[in-house]
Amino acid sequence: MRVSPLTLHRLSVYLRCLRQMEEAGVHRVSSQELADRFDLSATQIRKDLAQFGEFGIRGVGYDVARLTEGLHRLLGLDQQHRLAVVGMGSLGSALARHLGPDGTFAVVAGLDNDPRKVGTRLAHLEVRHSSELPAVVRETGATIGVLTVPADAAQVNYEALVVAGIRAVLNFAPARLKPNRAVPVKDVDFRINLEELVYFLK
Amino acid sequence: MRVSPLTLHRLSVYLRCLRQMEEAGVHRVSSQELADRFDLSATQIRKDLAQFGEFGIRGVGYDVARLTEGLHRLLGLDQQHRLAVVGMGSLGSALARHLGPDGTFAVVAGLDNDPRKVGTRLAHLEVRHSSELPAVVRETGATIGVLTVPADAAQVNYEALVVAGIRAVLNFAPARLKPNRAVPVKDVDFRINLEELVYFLK
Repeated sequence: MRVSPLTLHRLSVYLRCLRQMEEAGVHRVSSQELADRFDLSATQIRKDLAQFGEFGIRGVGYDVARLTEGLHRLLGLDQQHRLAVVGMGSLGSALARHLGPDGTFAVVAGLDNDPRKVGTRLAHLEVRHSSELPAVVRETGATIGVLTVPADAAQVNYEALVVAGIRAVLNFAPARLKPNRAVPVKDVDFRINLEELVYFLK
Repeated sequence: MRVSPLTLHRLSVYLRCLRQMEEAGVHRVSSQELADRFDLSATQIRKDLAQFGEFGIRGVGYDVARLTEGLHRLLGLDQQHRLAVVGMGSLGSALARHLGPDGTFAVVAGLDNDPRKVGTRLAHLEVRHSSELPAVVRETGATIGVLTVPADAAQVNYEALVVAGIRAVLNFAPARLKPNRAVPVKDVDFRINLEELVYFLK
């Protein structure tokens, strides 16, 4: 079954909320409680979850641990995904430190084209030269590329990731990429988010 | 005129594309060229821009510099917006270095509740204690708060930002906030983006 991008996004949000409930020691929750606590729609929650089978019991609600595990598996988060970060500036370095080797998302490679950075160690990684990308992807089994390069270097590095066999890309560069149909891109563009907030301030 | 969040997002994307065209030395562009180059819809571009007046000339296209400036003004980016970053870990520090004092978005304050960080200097800032937030907001004129705290500290720090008079919040914490209607939140949650990419990999 294919799930639409909007549904997928909502499922990720529910998972986040459920993890917060779990950490708070909550074992059982109704769609209405979830909706109230996290500013969501109870009807939408029920509809989204119903299409994947019977997670909840009417009048009793959802078992938090069971639903968390179900969503985890559904979203493919029960296995580790390996990330190669291209651009080891302050943001790339912060990501490498943040996503350690033991998580669902593990940064397994950091690359840069600055010879002063190549060979330096950062957290659990040794920075490699961008020209080594195909070998690094082969060695590490990275499937997701992360672009933390300047805007004018984003497209060429995206294409290098495609050639190296990376299957999906998270783009932090403030650039609009022209994507290859086979290798989807998600933009994490907080400047665009800031611009949207500013409009509200007017 | 109120613009819908989706339109707003697209206008920010167009602005990004136009800046890339400008940097590449392009002076004039048609909606079709923009669409082809950046994987957008030409019809949507024409429709979105038409509602703000006559930016383009039929058969001639848009003047890149003029349209860039128009969107800039429309989005409220012709003035500076001041940001207070709460949580000076690796991500908060990277943002403070990245958004210097001269840009449209300037980080003017960095706060943390770790006494070892308070008083240290980072780029153009001195880290202040989180308890000083109301005074810091008053002194610096910050209007946008940026949350780079751990998930379990996100809600309480969001509420502190609201009390301190911040008017909009960019949330990097992997937590779903229950927002105050008067102080909108934008989530920059790259884990959710990663989860969406993973589903595609299955």
